[in-house]
Amino acid sequence: MEIITTVSAMQSIARDMRRSGRRIGFVPTMGFLHDGHLELMRAARKKSDVLVASIFVNPTQFGPNEDFECYPRDAERDQSLCESVGVDYLFFPPVEEVYASDASVYVDEEQLSVGLCGGSRKGHFRGVLTVVAKLFNMVLPDVAVFGQKDAQQAALIRRMVRDLNFPIDIVVAPIVREPDGLAMSSRNAYLSDSEREQALWLSRSLQLAESMVAAGTFAAHELECAMRDFLAINASEVELEYIAIVDAVGLQPLEAVEGETLIALAARVGKTRLIDNIILNPELG
Amino acid sequence: MEIITTVSAMQSIARDMRRSGRRIGFVPTMGFLHDGHLELMRAARKKSDVLVASIFVNPTQFGPNEDFECYPRDAERDQSLCESVGVDYLFFPPVEEVYASDASVYVDEEQLSVGLCGGSRKGHFRGVLTVVAKLFNMVLPDVAVFGQKDAQQAALIRRMVRDLNFPIDIVVAPIVREPDGLAMSSRNAYLSDSEREQALWLSRSLQLAESMVAAGTFAAHELECAMRDFLAINASEVELEYIAIVDAVGLQPLEAVEGETLIALAARVGKTRLIDNIILNPELG
Repeated sequence: MEIITTVSAMQSIARDMRRSGRRIGFVPTMGFLHDGHLELMRAARKKSDVLVASIFVNPTQFGPNEDFECYPRDAERDQSLCESVGVDYLFFPPVEEVYASDASVYVDEEQLSVGLCGGSRKGHFRGVLTVVAKLFNMVLPDVAVFGQKDAQQAALIRRMVRDLNFPIDIVVAPIVREPDGLAMSSRNAYLSDSEREQALWLSRSLQLAESMVAAGTFAAHELECAMRDFLAINASEVELEYIAIVDAVGLQPLEAVEGETLIALAARVGKTRLIDNIILNPELG
Repeated sequence: MEIITTVSAMQSIARDMRRSGRRIGFVPTMGFLHDGHLELMRAARKKSDVLVASIFVNPTQFGPNEDFECYPRDAERDQSLCESVGVDYLFFPPVEEVYASDASVYVDEEQLSVGLCGGSRKGHFRGVLTVVAKLFNMVLPDVAVFGQKDAQQAALIRRMVRDLNFPIDIVVAPIVREPDGLAMSSRNAYLSDSEREQALWLSRSLQLAESMVAAGTFAAHELECAMRDFLAINASEVELEYIAIVDAVGLQPLEAVEGETLIALAARVGKTRLIDNIILNPELG
């Protein structure tokens, strides 16, 4: 595995790969890797000849009161994990290499980014889309893999690729969960034991909604009320930010579960903000 | 010359060219070609193995009261002109092929786009940058050529390429003028004979500024006042929108001509909006 730290070296390698007809797979990450990330890399590996992963904690997607400074980092461990799943090139640029000090161009989205996490994290998705567009132009992938865990991000990246015509296939890989159901996240490292116990009720509330849909309850407000009550009763320390029941592609609110439906939530457990979601498609049984 | 009308065909050709190691040159236009455009194509031809030109009158860069509907078009003449300068692929997509009806992703710039034409043409540069980013992803050029006539557009495209890391060399080719000094523009077709006479004073006012700088006057306000007086006296039908004296890269206002300086202006002559500019660099003599 080769570690690349400059944009020019990354682009030069990417162009050579393209010219030699090799298919480039790409997994962008913010590091502090867990098995969720590694699953993305394994998925990308299967669909490409050369695998590039990036580790870049992107300052522009953190709000002023968010956890950019203390976001967990462990470069050495990340490197050996990348190597273990067959990453060929690890792109690991410093911030100054990615952003000019007078950078002034942004990628903005104005429909899918408004609700869900976009409601509370102003500027977050501008930061995400801008850095992903930049990374796409640095790595020139044929296929890029993102995680369903960040459901709104995944939908936005699909939309960006469509609307800016990036010649890239986007694959969204399923959420990887701990044995107890907690969705894997680098931010789980912040949780105390008791917070972690509380956090488990988030995925359980999604399972509740799934069971209700399977049993024939489709009305969004009924599902949301049941989830809220369930969390209020079982997890009093969980401070819910939102529950959204939306179409999985356009992220527009649904009155009833119909077709591919995303149920997504965000909550604070202590100081840690967690998200989780499930995709339901009652028409597929 | 092959005419391409779909994004998928264009991307497929572009990828094949890239794979075969051929350097793609690209000139995006809105058609109704004049010798200014053809000079861009000749410049691109010299720097590439395969020459792609596009003709697309981009609706999103026109304001609601601007001339999108009546913008001059002449597809047949444009095609033979492209052929005459050695265009290999003419990309000529319909609007529905370029924009999804629910498109929601945009490229925005927040420094260089504020002044000059950005002051009066709200949303114009968002439209320009978004369509150019899209065209770059459709044509995958190694080098793209733009005209100095649209000075602010050229500076913005350089900035976008830098900030979004497009792996593309941007070349800006000099303004091509009619023998009488009028900067070539598709919109010159709107001018009556008498309006055209008036319009000539625009380039003459830029020449005046150039002579003054050569004679040692560097103060921006003196140059601007002299140009305004000169136009008021000689061209009473010219309705000046702005005169800007700015650094040629960052487009920030200068108190005095220093280093590479752009003097740009916009004016209405009758109903026609015209722009022109000159780049001065007194340090180069």
